[in-house]
Amino acid sequence: MRKPVNPTHAFSEAEREALWRALRERRDMRHFLSDPLPEGMLERLVLAAHLGPSVGYMQPWRFIRLTHTDLRAAVCHLVEQERQATAAQLPSRNQEFLKVKVEGLRECAEVLAVVLMPQREAHIFGRRTMPDMDLASIGCAIQNMWLAARVEGIGLGWVSFFDPEALGSLLSLPEGAQPVALLCLGHVTEFYPRPMLESQGWGKRLELDAILFDNQWPSGAGGTPTAY
Amino acid sequence: MRKPVNPTHAFSEAEREALWRALRERRDMRHFLSDPLPEGMLERLVLAAHLGPSVGYMQPWRFIRLTHTDLRAAVCHLVEQERQATAAQLPSRNQEFLKVKVEGLRECAEVLAVVLMPQREAHIFGRRTMPDMDLASIGCAIQNMWLAARVEGIGLGWVSFFDPEALGSLLSLPEGAQPVALLCLGHVTEFYPRPMLESQGWGKRLELDAILFDNQWPSGAGGTPTAY
Repeated sequence: MRKPVNPTHAFSEAEREALWRALRERRDMRHFLSDPLPEGMLERLVLAAHLGPSVGYMQPWRFIRLTHTDLRAAVCHLVEQERQATAAQLPSRNQEFLKVKVEGLRECAEVLAVVLMPQREAHIFGRRTMPDMDLASIGCAIQNMWLAARVEGIGLGWVSFFDPEALGSLLSLPEGAQPVALLCLGHVTEFYPRPMLESQGWGKRLELDAILFDNQWPSGAGGTPTAY
Repeated sequence: MRKPVNPTHAFSEAEREALWRALRERRDMRHFLSDPLPEGMLERLVLAAHLGPSVGYMQPWRFIRLTHTDLRAAVCHLVEQERQATAAQLPSRNQEFLKVKVEGLRECAEVLAVVLMPQREAHIFGRRTMPDMDLASIGCAIQNMWLAARVEGIGLGWVSFFDPEALGSLLSLPEGAQPVALLCLGHVTEFYPRPMLESQGWGKRLELDAILFDNQWPSGAGGTPTAY
């Protein structure tokens, strides 16, 4: 006898729609107002991330809140350097566009550096053959924070324009720790109606049949059509 | 003059609570009923993932739905091999526990292999210094799917117990593509009240002050206390 499927595990229609609204309206933000976040909001958003799943329950994520003015300026400088290095490898039309990456970091209320903890090699459960599953877990955690920020009306932008070694030095990271994100958090004038990179003509969302296959890789299917 | 903060960007209290309920009640599931998913559900869950953010909008995720019985059996065999290899490196009390990893894969309604697309080296935006940001993006996408599945009452388990090269062969992946997850999807008798690894005494959730720091890495802060 098969156990019956229990439909009560599903959330209500209103709850399901709330999640889908968050999925649809979440944006990678680059424009911020500098007004401070409400009291306790940052901790609440870190808690959302901390509810994320992690390979072998290792919870590899560490969050460093950047409040010192000098430190934030040094981090901005680092990102500006990387922006220029990236711009040098991109078509010239994108130079202007790339600047917003740094400006958002200067304007936003809060900056969190997200770091892979040291001593990860002790955790082999679920990552014996793929040690970088810890980074995938951090992605899950940050997505939780992204959605939690969106429902609060708070913008979040993930900046990965930096030299990880140089950022690690600025943050006094121990051997084996690795920074993977600078998260900009803050109030925004508006959430972009579409992903900014889409509005800018950088790319468009792929059709479902370009990303979902049956049983094996289809012949001819490659990466995304436009690549920079 | 500073632009005013617009509180209307926040979702309603009921919507915010719905997201938080999903964040709290989402689980990495290992026990499934084999009843099929409702018509269209799989595509809906892939769409949730596809709404995720990606570095440089590269959308590196590809999903391969495993429906052939022989293929699913071959994949289960691969995971069983890796389970044994991992078990050999763990304390013996965990041997029994590790078995559920494979059983879930056999029982669940649907298995999706998640693959990093080939030709990712063409995308340098946001990953010039950290090419593995594509994996972080896949983590974000899968977290979207996880939450979307939870609100529908559908369980999801992320299995990373496999040799990626061997799985790549089974799926006829092209050069440069890389499998990163086997997702088990299906109905469940119940969602675990707490993370299964916590109930099993494998680990516990860290306190917030162990993962959130100010301005620099605190002296003495390392990895998680228990590590296997």
